[in-house]
Amino acid sequence: MDTASLHQKIVQKIEASLQNFLGTQHFGTARDLRKMLSYHLGWEDEGRHGKRIRPLLTLLCTGALDGDLNSAMPAAISVELLHNFTLIHDDIEDQSDIRHGRETLWKQWGIAQAINAGDALFSIAQLSMLELAQTCDADIAVRATSILNQVCLHLTRGQYLDIALEANDDTELETYLEMTLGKTAALISFSTALGGVITGQEEPITKQLSDFGRSLGMAFQMQDDYLGIWGDPKITGKSASSDLQTKKKTLPVLYGLTNCQEFNELWKNYHPSSEQIAYMTNVLETCGARSYVSDHVKNYTNHAFDALVSIFGDVKDKNIYVDALLELCEKLLSRKA
Amino acid sequence: MDTASLHQKIVQKIEASLQNFLGTQHFGTARDLRKMLSYHLGWEDEGRHGKRIRPLLTLLCTGALDGDLNSAMPAAISVELLHNFTLIHDDIEDQSDIRHGRETLWKQWGIAQAINAGDALFSIAQLSMLELAQTCDADIAVRATSILNQVCLHLTRGQYLDIALEANDDTELETYLEMTLGKTAALISFSTALGGVITGQEEPITKQLSDFGRSLGMAFQMQDDYLGIWGDPKITGKSASSDLQTKKKTLPVLYGLTNCQEFNELWKNYHPSSEQIAYMTNVLETCGARSYVSDHVKNYTNHAFDALVSIFGDVKDKNIYVDALLELCEKLLSRKA
Repeated sequence: MDTASLHQKIVQKIEASLQNFLGTQHFGTARDLRKMLSYHLGWEDEGRHGKRIRPLLTLLCTGALDGDLNSAMPAAISVELLHNFTLIHDDIEDQSDIRHGRETLWKQWGIAQAINAGDALFSIAQLSMLELAQTCDADIAVRATSILNQVCLHLTRGQYLDIALEANDDTELETYLEMTLGKTAALISFSTALGGVITGQEEPITKQLSDFGRSLGMAFQMQDDYLGIWGDPKITGKSASSDLQTKKKTLPVLYGLTNCQEFNELWKNYHPSSEQIAYMTNVLETCGARSYVSDHVKNYTNHAFDALVSIFGDVKDKNIYVDALLELCEKLLSRKA
Repeated sequence: MDTASLHQKIVQKIEASLQNFLGTQHFGTARDLRKMLSYHLGWEDEGRHGKRIRPLLTLLCTGALDGDLNSAMPAAISVELLHNFTLIHDDIEDQSDIRHGRETLWKQWGIAQAINAGDALFSIAQLSMLELAQTCDADIAVRATSILNQVCLHLTRGQYLDIALEANDDTELETYLEMTLGKTAALISFSTALGGVITGQEEPITKQLSDFGRSLGMAFQMQDDYLGIWGDPKITGKSASSDLQTKKKTLPVLYGLTNCQEFNELWKNYHPSSEQIAYMTNVLETCGARSYVSDHVKNYTNHAFDALVSIFGDVKDKNIYVDALLELCEKLLSRKA
């Protein structure tokens, strides 16, 4: 089997397991609560959904360490459910109306029901992780669920900073890194580390897997920030410099605010028009923001691949899961949209 | 030691353990997130807080079964943190401004930060329960944390119904019972059942403990509903028939809506004034709502005490924890405020 077919096969298994696990939960007369979760997960009303990258990482890391993918499935499902729980609450907190081309949950059902549905999904994510007591053993289930909740706490710290920073123009780059670590990298790092926890690896291997995921997550987010300004509108499907249009405080903007007085002054009274956006994009590039961000993406990408090499030694031809892992990372980090 | 001193001593231990456990959590630069949780738990700004009844029930049930209270403490702390997480989100969902005489968390910090702080507390509650792997063993930790999350899912079903029903005047009494089971009784039932889980009891004992807590929780909520209309304002500190004033759909109101056409018609165009409130209170009593509710309280109370007897046999002089448990129940169910 080639790596592309392997990806596809695993993602189909993930999707079936997600549907199956949600199907076994009891909703009683609160049937609409199940419908809300199905809608958010992309299974209702011609839904679309994310690429299930996090559970894919968990399963590929498990396979790369010669572990059993079926035993790891409850953990993989759990990280995807957890990720989706955070999206439901983030959309309320950020007042986002649209996700994957459809109305967000709170836009459809109101804030009260959406907070509650998020809480339900959080509980279901925990229940899935605890299933590891059946597929592996109770010690592994406790360890994995404990890390899951430490990661959640890390996510809430990241989200706290994000909400607080939106209101503050004096954000430091250091705070951005801490926020990104919490909001994006912590969960991706957990997804990869789980491969080590499930296969019962010694601490150094699990730590290296965690480092790999963290660097991958940081590179992924910064690549997102890069594409939000310098992505090709024909490929991203968004308008040029879309993050400048929405006044999002991404890494290039924070670099500009810190290192370029002209950008800083323009930003203070910034009412985006297409001329203004084009001008600001140029100012950012001139002051070095573009190369700063792309250097950061490169550095984190190199860290991620170095971590893989330090775990698997000569990574080539190790096993098909290692190959698939490498290919997934390359795809994620060279994406243009 | 008498039971009153025992209560006091245990509640002090609970408080110290709560503070200690929150103190060990890492908040990094998101220091204000810790402050939010401390505020909600009643430790900041001359705070007041609840009576910590749920963890008290867990510890008394553990002691009544000759279990070790220190080993059970992480579970006791967990149910209190869980209860408080639900209060943070409920206050947002119900748009409640005041709790324990102070502004609610979302009123002080905004909806976005309050949702996020609730999520943080939910994770901390899970981390505490998982500590049972240290004080008991991994199997008990997995079992307790699994039930915790099933209970949370039950809570979200109850909350779903509550939000949905506020907008619907055709609420059936059956739906009220289901909602109360989810919103109040499920967590109290879990608090008592935990005593059985922690001391490794066979299924029938744990089930009876769970039944005891469920009946206690149902009686407790219905007593609340009774006092919300027929409580003595001098003792409750609230205005007469305060639940009629706020148009809360409690059990007596639902009884009136179902069984009394006059009440039903009055309710439809109900703009509470003190004369209207007094009149409606009378209509409710005449149509039998008062005796209906107090009968329900009595029935659930009897169920609760029957369950205790079936667990402990002759409950008198069994051990001091059984005595303390009986006394706590009597106090809770005969309260006037």
